[in-house]
Amino acid sequence: MAKNFEELLSKLSACEKKTLSVACAHDVAVLEAVNEAHKMGIVDAILVGKEDKIREIAGQIGMNPDDFTIIDEQDDAQAPLTAVKLVHDGKADMYMKGILPTKNFLKSVLNKEVGLRTGKPLSHVAVFEIPGIDRLVFASDVAFIPYPSLEDKKAIIAYDVDVAKACGVENPKVAPLAAVEVVNPKMQATVDADELRKANEAGEIRDCVVDGPLSLDIALYPAAAKEKGAEDRPAAGKADVLLFPDIHAGNICYKAMVHMVPGLKNGCLLVGTAAPVILTSRSDSKETKIYSIALAALLAEHMRKVNG
Amino acid sequence: MAKNFEELLSKLSACEKKTLSVACAHDVAVLEAVNEAHKMGIVDAILVGKEDKIREIAGQIGMNPDDFTIIDEQDDAQAPLTAVKLVHDGKADMYMKGILPTKNFLKSVLNKEVGLRTGKPLSHVAVFEIPGIDRLVFASDVAFIPYPSLEDKKAIIAYDVDVAKACGVENPKVAPLAAVEVVNPKMQATVDADELRKANEAGEIRDCVVDGPLSLDIALYPAAAKEKGAEDRPAAGKADVLLFPDIHAGNICYKAMVHMVPGLKNGCLLVGTAAPVILTSRSDSKETKIYSIALAALLAEHMRKVNG
Repeated sequence: MAKNFEELLSKLSACEKKTLSVACAHDVAVLEAVNEAHKMGIVDAILVGKEDKIREIAGQIGMNPDDFTIIDEQDDAQAPLTAVKLVHDGKADMYMKGILPTKNFLKSVLNKEVGLRTGKPLSHVAVFEIPGIDRLVFASDVAFIPYPSLEDKKAIIAYDVDVAKACGVENPKVAPLAAVEVVNPKMQATVDADELRKANEAGEIRDCVVDGPLSLDIALYPAAAKEKGAEDRPAAGKADVLLFPDIHAGNICYKAMVHMVPGLKNGCLLVGTAAPVILTSRSDSKETKIYSIALAALLAEHMRKVNG
Repeated sequence: MAKNFEELLSKLSACEKKTLSVACAHDVAVLEAVNEAHKMGIVDAILVGKEDKIREIAGQIGMNPDDFTIIDEQDDAQAPLTAVKLVHDGKADMYMKGILPTKNFLKSVLNKEVGLRTGKPLSHVAVFEIPGIDRLVFASDVAFIPYPSLEDKKAIIAYDVDVAKACGVENPKVAPLAAVEVVNPKMQATVDADELRKANEAGEIRDCVVDGPLSLDIALYPAAAKEKGAEDRPAAGKADVLLFPDIHAGNICYKAMVHMVPGLKNGCLLVGTAAPVILTSRSDSKETKIYSIALAALLAEHMRKVNG
C-alpha cells in the first residue's frame, strides 16, 4: 500500500513501463511534466500535435525530442482523434490532454469510433497526500457529475475503489460525507450515505467497506472520531475514500485544500473510460501533472491485470 | 476594517465593554475561555450554573470567581432559561453555551417568553483568518440550514454582511460559491447565485456587492481569478463573504480548513437572534472560543448602534 506519492512512484518501477498518448502536446507545461515523468522512468510517451512547436519547446526546456515518438498533426481538431485512437487500438495505455479546450478533449474521449467510451458515467478521482495523514486519500467527484444519483454514487465508489486498489490499498474504507454523521431524513446526502452502506453490506458494492454518513473530521481524524464517540465506526479516523454529496461540496473542498494546505500533494484522473485519462488543468502544478501520470500508469497496470 | 483577529481584538478596546451570559457555565473549557476573554478586557460575564462546581473549576484554572457574577442554578434545565432571560431583559449583551446539550441550549434561544427569537431563520457565521489572505473571511452556513432556499440565502447574506460590518468591513464583497463560475441551468447553486446577484443589483440585498457564482479559488485568490480570466469580476480574488450552496458543502469545507490549514484562526456565531449567541463546540480550541466571544461583542456593539 502506497502511503504517499513517493511510495507510489517507487511502486511504479515494479510495473512494466506504460505509454502515454498526449493530444495537442505542443504546450510548455504539459511537455515539462511528460518529460520529467519520462526521466523518472514512469512512462514512455507519444506526442501528437504540432511537431515544429514540440521541437521548439523541447529546445527551450532541455528535453530530448528523440526520447519520444512524435506524430505531427497540425490540425488541433484532428490531433485528439489521432491521439485517443492510439489508446483505443492498444498502442498506448493512457490518454492525456495537452493544449486544447476541455470540451474538444472530452469529445475525443467519448468518440464512438476511436474513443474510450464504456457506457458508464464519466467521473473524476482526486488523490491527496495530506500532511498529518498517514495514507493517500481518494476523493470524488469534484469535477464531473453535478448532482450524482444513488446509482451514480455507486459507480463513483467503484471508480475510487479501483484507483485505490491500483495504488495498493486493499479493501479501502469509503466515507460518504455529509455535514453530520447520523441519518437525517431531511438531508438527502445522509439518506444516500445510508443506502450506500446497506448496498455494501448486501454485497452490491464490493471490495470496500462503506461507512456513512460521516463528517469530514470524523472520517479523517481519529481524535475527532473519538471526541464524538464515533471511534468504533469502520471508517472513522481511517477513511481511504471520501465521497462528496455533490460537485459543489467536492469542488469547494478540493479548491480549499489545494490552495490553503501547505505541503499537500495531489493528482487526479478522469475515470469511467476504457483506459486511464489525465485531464489536468492549466493551473495544476508540474508535480500534480506528474502524480496524475503516475496514477494513470498504476491504474493502467491494474486494469491490465483485472481484464487479463 | 479588521484584517485579522488581533486587530479585531484591539478594535474591541474602543467599545463599551459587553456582558456575556453563560448557560451551565460549570465547564473547564468554557470557563478557561471566558476567564481569558475577561482578562483581555473583552467582556464581563454572568455565570449561570452550579456555583460549587464553578468555584471548584476556578481554583483549578487560576480564575478569580469574584471577577464574575455567579448565579447559582443547580438545575441544568433551568440554567439556560435563567441565562437567556438575562440577555432577553437587557442585563447581558450576548448569550453563550456552557456544558449542556445543544438541543437544550437552542430551546432556550427559541423560548417564546425569555428567549431571543426574531422570527427569522437561525443560521451560523464562521469567521476565518486564513494564512496568505489579507482580510477576514466570513462564511455561511456550515451548521444550521441544510438546504437553504433562495429566501434563506438572502437572509444568510444579510447576517454575514452584519457580522462583516460589525468587524469594520464596509460594503463587503459576497461570493455565492459553486463548482463553477458560470451559470448552468442544470446546477441550481449557480442559478441561485445569479438570482442573488440580480437581487443585489435591484437593491433588494443591501450594503454589499454580490457576485456569483464563483468557485472558491476565484473568490479568494487573485492569481486564480486572473488565470481563469475572471479578474474583472467584482468579488474575484477579494471576496469577504463566502456563501456555501448548502450545509454539506459548507461543513465539509469548514472541517477541512479547520483541521488541515496550519495557522488558520476562526470564530463563529449563531445568528438570526435578537442578540449575539455563541455556540462553540467542545472540540473548538480556547482561541476559537475567545475569537467567538470577541465577534459576539462586536456584533452586540453593531446591533446597539443600528437599533439605536
